[in-house]
Amino acid sequence: MVLFRRMLGDVLRDERMQRGMTLREVSAEARVSLGYISEIERGQKEASSELLASLCSALGVPLSSVLRSVSDAVATEERAVAEALGATPMPVPRVEPVASAA
Amino acid sequence: MVLFRRMLGDVLRDERMQRGMTLREVSAEARVSLGYISEIERGQKEASSELLASLCSALGVPLSSVLRSVSDAVATEERAVAEALGATPMPVPRVEPVASAA
Repeated sequence: MVLFRRMLGDVLRDERMQRGMTLREVSAEARVSLGYISEIERGQKEASSELLASLCSALGVPLSSVLRSVSDAVATEERAVAEALGATPMPVPRVEPVASAA
Repeated sequence: MVLFRRMLGDVLRDERMQRGMTLREVSAEARVSLGYISEIERGQKEASSELLASLCSALGVPLSSVLRSVSDAVATEERAVAEALGATPMPVPRVEPVASAA
């Protein structure tokens, strides 16, 4: 199962690294405890929407940009999972499974 | 403040409507209470990553696709907020504003 919080954590850490910011700096800027941010970056805790907005603001990156990156990362993982299963990507309801004639 | 859960709720409701599914059907398929899904669609509750994955699976839509739609909706709202404030959107370090030739 592809989990949002894990991919979000990866993206938030990448954004922080790209800016050369430490966990301490983001913590002070976002007024969120360092340990909590660290857990979010490691995908161990869910970030509330308010906290996510604060983190984006502290990093100076638009929320839309973070979500776009997470979407891209999730898409890559979905393809990898589908390929590993030798299956087509997750079915969309309009495509009904073919019923075998009885 | 643009909140992730509110935009996510809008997207999840749109996806459900597009498929002509009722809250009851999604509830049964995702094994999540109807009231909880309703609150998520109205942006009143945060969805855990596991719940979000279940809802996407019940709707038959990839998580990446839902997140892409949320990213687009958030970007639209960010532009609207920036215009309302008469300000430029939240700066992204790599994109410099174009300076007009004096």
